[in-house]
Amino acid sequence: MTHQIAVIPGDGIGQEVTPAAVSVLESFDIDFEFVEADAGDAVEAETGAALPEETYELAATADATLFGAAGESAADVILPLREAVDSFVNVRPARAYPGVDALRPETDLVFLRENTEGVYSGHESRLSDDLSTLTRVVTDSASKRLATFACDYVSDRGLEGFTVAHKANVMRETDGRFRDAVAEVADEHGVETDEVLMDAFATHICLDPTQFDVVVCPNLAGDVLSDLAAGLVGGLGLLPSANIGPDRALFEPVHGTAPDIAGEGIANPAAAILSAAMLLEYLGYDEEGKTVRSAVESVLETGPRTGDLGGEASTDEMTTAIIDAL
Amino acid sequence: MTHQIAVIPGDGIGQEVTPAAVSVLESFDIDFEFVEADAGDAVEAETGAALPEETYELAATADATLFGAAGESAADVILPLREAVDSFVNVRPARAYPGVDALRPETDLVFLRENTEGVYSGHESRLSDDLSTLTRVVTDSASKRLATFACDYVSDRGLEGFTVAHKANVMRETDGRFRDAVAEVADEHGVETDEVLMDAFATHICLDPTQFDVVVCPNLAGDVLSDLAAGLVGGLGLLPSANIGPDRALFEPVHGTAPDIAGEGIANPAAAILSAAMLLEYLGYDEEGKTVRSAVESVLETGPRTGDLGGEASTDEMTTAIIDAL
Ligand SMILES: CC(C)[C@H](C(=O)O)[C@@H](O)C(=O)O
Ligand SMILES: CC(C)[C@H](C(=O)O)[C@@H](O)C(=O)O
Repeated sequence: MTHQIAVIPGDGIGQEVTPAAVSVLESFDIDFEFVEADAGDAVEAETGAALPEETYELAATADATLFGAAGESAADVILPLREAVDSFVNVRPARAYPGVDALRPETDLVFLRENTEGVYSGHESRLSDDLSTLTRVVTDSASKRLATFACDYVSDRGLEGFTVAHKANVMRETDGRFRDAVAEVADEHGVETDEVLMDAFATHICLDPTQFDVVVCPNLAGDVLSDLAAGLVGGLGLLPSANIGPDRALFEPVHGTAPDIAGEGIANPAAAILSAAMLLEYLGYDEEGKTVRSAVESVLETGPRTGDLGGEASTDEMTTAIIDAL
Repeated sequence: MTHQIAVIPGDGIGQEVTPAAVSVLESFDIDFEFVEADAGDAVEAETGAALPEETYELAATADATLFGAAGESAADVILPLREAVDSFVNVRPARAYPGVDALRPETDLVFLRENTEGVYSGHESRLSDDLSTLTRVVTDSASKRLATFACDYVSDRGLEGFTVAHKANVMRETDGRFRDAVAEVADEHGVETDEVLMDAFATHICLDPTQFDVVVCPNLAGDVLSDLAAGLVGGLGLLPSANIGPDRALFEPVHGTAPDIAGEGIANPAAAILSAAMLLEYLGYDEEGKTVRSAVESVLETGPRTGDLGGEASTDEMTTAIIDAL
């Protein structure tokens, strides 16, 4: 069975790390068909559209998408792409790796971020010369879809439960609905939950990240708190993510385009390659996904490493080392 | 001239640290009239109201208010109290102290948090069995009032400018308005600004907190990012805050009621006492405020300290040591 994979490198180092991830996928005996497409600042400058219709269509029909990064146009690219795959959850593992400097080396948790609503609803109005509003949207259906995913996620991994991070003491109706809907589903599945206010979470994860394992949260909370966790593990350079929908999914490193080093061939490919590992697992190739993760880990610890990790390797050298370690 | 100070200890350790802060204020030769009032879970259990009308009225008329902490009812107490003093900015310094364990000992910044709108607007609706909404509000007037304060704040301290943290790439109209209004005022005042997305801020402050100095942000961003900074300096135990209005102000430690140690007389009074230092400065007693801060610093470094700081002192012993060091 052929798996069609949309490959959207985007801007900056996306152009360097996405091919690296593809070459890792190509080293398996799996029938992939890679189809490349444009998105981001460069194509916007040329055509006026940061996300050409063909690219949207490709992501909306391919079995999975590998995305790199986009520059100024990031929101115009990634938010519609998440919609193209009907992604209801953004899976963001944040863990520190042996051999990589981290503020909290014991960090190892996963965010399951609601990926369709909250302040990302897109409903904003300029009501007067003084006043603008945004309609923050929370539905039972989206909250429960996320919660069902979270229950399966923890069960598959033999975990007991998850933490819900929210701000329901202020957003009583909307985050209250989110919290209650998630709790109801967890209850039906016999999955344990505890809850924490998102501001308190920000303090507690700094003081002791090991108290959290799987964290379920609304869209913006997931955005900010996962970037915070990235700071504790040493930056965005190592964090992969998966945008999962019912029929397809999109995988992207959490980092941006790194304009300061773009084009030099020295970008760290780890996050893109770890995103490819998540793609393998999504398609059912669990063993292969694990193999990629182990290879990345061993290279991070002992192999040739890029400049951001204190090494001197190029993107290609580090990628080759990872492929050799498979 | 007599300064009337409303004293609202609230629940839990609020009952212990607020009197400590009052005793520090009493050691100066300043004509204070302290008037105590109830708020929080305890008075709610008794009377049904977490914030009795007399307490609201007192805060709305006193020259300044010292607040402790409230339990479950925190939002029902502190949000109306901020309104009572018409507070448009929440000033939250976050710094590490010599002698106190901190994840990032070099942290030293101040958040100027918009204190009236954003998702705190209170406009929520249950529109259907599935759908709830919240109207996030941003006005030019509130943004500019905050920005004017920020400009004065940096000028008074001989600083060049401030950083604006926002999420205008997603909340284009509302946070875009916030960002533009703040920039416009800064420009008029000849104050430099730079901007950062709030998610990127969460990563960057972990990697290097010294790149930030004064951070201006919307309400929820300030809530979460200042709690994150608290995690970097070792917890909430040391963080004071000021809610400033045009005619009066309210001062509160950032910590909560600490139910696990409440009633034992071992709570760390530093955050409440540092809040009293901010109160002194607000009333124009700059020297006295500085003296209090230095006394707290020296006791944190060498004096008797409470259990949360690895010491064995009681709240009273630590407070006495601070008063002796004045
Ligand atoms: C680029 C931006 C719209 C996006 C988001 O806010 O979701 C990014 O920060 C992310 O987390 O992937
Ligand atoms: C108690 C809560 C309403 C409050 C807030 O969100 O502002 C608290 O977290 C704070 O930061 O003072």
